[in-house]
Amino acid sequence: MSRGTVSRFLNGGHYVSPAARRSVESAIRKTGYVVNRHARSLSTGRSDSVAFLLTEPQEKFFEDPNFNILLRGCTEHLARHDIPLLLMLAASDDDRRRLTRYITTGHVDGVLLVSSHSGDPVAAELRDAGIPLVACGKPMGLGTTVSYVAADDREGARDMVRHLLGTGRRRIGMITGPLDLPGGTDRLAGYREVLAEAGVPHAPELVAEGDYTRSGGERAARRLLECAPDMEAVFVASDLMAQGVVNALQQSGRSVPDDIAVGGFDDSPAATSVSPALTTVRQPFDRISAEMVRMLLAQIAGEDTAGVILPTELVVRDSA
Amino acid sequence: MSRGTVSRFLNGGHYVSPAARRSVESAIRKTGYVVNRHARSLSTGRSDSVAFLLTEPQEKFFEDPNFNILLRGCTEHLARHDIPLLLMLAASDDDRRRLTRYITTGHVDGVLLVSSHSGDPVAAELRDAGIPLVACGKPMGLGTTVSYVAADDREGARDMVRHLLGTGRRRIGMITGPLDLPGGTDRLAGYREVLAEAGVPHAPELVAEGDYTRSGGERAARRLLECAPDMEAVFVASDLMAQGVVNALQQSGRSVPDDIAVGGFDDSPAATSVSPALTTVRQPFDRISAEMVRMLLAQIAGEDTAGVILPTELVVRDSA
Repeated sequence: MSRGTVSRFLNGGHYVSPAARRSVESAIRKTGYVVNRHARSLSTGRSDSVAFLLTEPQEKFFEDPNFNILLRGCTEHLARHDIPLLLMLAASDDDRRRLTRYITTGHVDGVLLVSSHSGDPVAAELRDAGIPLVACGKPMGLGTTVSYVAADDREGARDMVRHLLGTGRRRIGMITGPLDLPGGTDRLAGYREVLAEAGVPHAPELVAEGDYTRSGGERAARRLLECAPDMEAVFVASDLMAQGVVNALQQSGRSVPDDIAVGGFDDSPAATSVSPALTTVRQPFDRISAEMVRMLLAQIAGEDTAGVILPTELVVRDSA
Repeated sequence: MSRGTVSRFLNGGHYVSPAARRSVESAIRKTGYVVNRHARSLSTGRSDSVAFLLTEPQEKFFEDPNFNILLRGCTEHLARHDIPLLLMLAASDDDRRRLTRYITTGHVDGVLLVSSHSGDPVAAELRDAGIPLVACGKPMGLGTTVSYVAADDREGARDMVRHLLGTGRRRIGMITGPLDLPGGTDRLAGYREVLAEAGVPHAPELVAEGDYTRSGGERAARRLLECAPDMEAVFVASDLMAQGVVNALQQSGRSVPDDIAVGGFDDSPAATSVSPALTTVRQPFDRISAEMVRMLLAQIAGEDTAGVILPTELVVRDSA
């Protein structure tokens, strides 16, 4: 077999026939060959590194266990390819400008982008600079020009609201995520659809926007209790916010789930570190990080990738 | 004035006379000149970026508020020089090898190193590769060959133990940090010195090693209660561990501070998010991060730097 064939296989597998691919794979297994990334980066001009770029205030990064889980998953999946992960926190426009400059001057091969709000220019800037890029969640306002991996937010929300209806409750509130993030709008859409299908009239006083923080969940719960004291259940768009909601409800003298049932979203460690443990919608975090890494490496190797939507799962515990 | 003089001033200030320095500074103020780092990095071969490298498991990074504070401080001080910070988490030997390879192939200009345990080879490796490097806390076993910034752990511990003695207590325990970190050994040394000076006999059953986690603090407190149920006070080497200690003491039926006084270390947000609020030793986090950045930029500009020890301050609240 030619050096060219082996090289094409190792650098992405383009223009390698299935038979040649099997021979190379077999030779790799027999010889225990391992890519020397340093030598390769000297000859390819690649940095052989990937950025995990988070466009959120630093506090959110530390508070929300979802980031911890995603970061660990991406680190582990990249490690299997011997690629280091560089964590970048862009809390301000200046941070974003500095980090974009670093990324676009050849220091990283691609970017895993987490939490890009509507109006945040970072996804479009990196796309326009030709940087391989995969977003966690569909970046709003960019159509299909940026690849992404997302949980099926709408279907997950539908499952939860059907479950709450199934417990006999009709006055069901919702605390949404930020409505400039797709998880914010899609979970709200699923909630409204299922209530409409069940013939429950729309009640705007039962919906409050949250910000994916514990304290934001507390505040939103207090607003709902004021505007709709007869609320029987509430679907909260993240487990961390739901922790704050359970706290606010208990402080107001309501018991969960007897007076008000609470459903969360994520199935992060936050779901089980509160009492009662949260009934929630599991995001497939490990599959999300595995897909993000797979798609980014494919892009770096020159392939086109698109959007991937992964299924969620209802997890019934004690809060609803 | 020659282009050479201005260039030397902008690149570190070597070989620039005080008079020339004042003229350049005045011209910079008048013209509103800002360094174009991108253009400069093209001509200098520098990446104009700095790594914040943490050699701890990822969970500790998220749990311990000290890292959050240090990271924010270093990000802000670097931002004043328009330099982006890259966060690197080296939880395993493989992570360390990958990240060291990235750092030593020209992608970062220098490293802020946090939490280097005794036996961890990363500080020596980076030093030997000639990478500008400043450690937070004195890296153990490396003498004075690596620059560092540290709080005065020993003096801070002495202040706390003197305070506990001043409240009339004699049976004073200690929960240390990991004894392969300088904060672990130095705070223990301060504790033992002050008790010896006060004529209190050394009681090994009153000392337990902790790991700077909340749950580690809880476990260590339970061990001390078993071995020394007559303990009257305990000095805990971090506020996060002290949260766990207060919890364990209260669960065992002891009130804090009436039955057992608790003193912490750090004055991090953990000190005031527990009841009673912790009497503690304030680490000057903002000065630590400012000094780390100042020394690293000086090294990158070619200067020699050394060790800096910053004073702590006793903060008396309700727990002791």
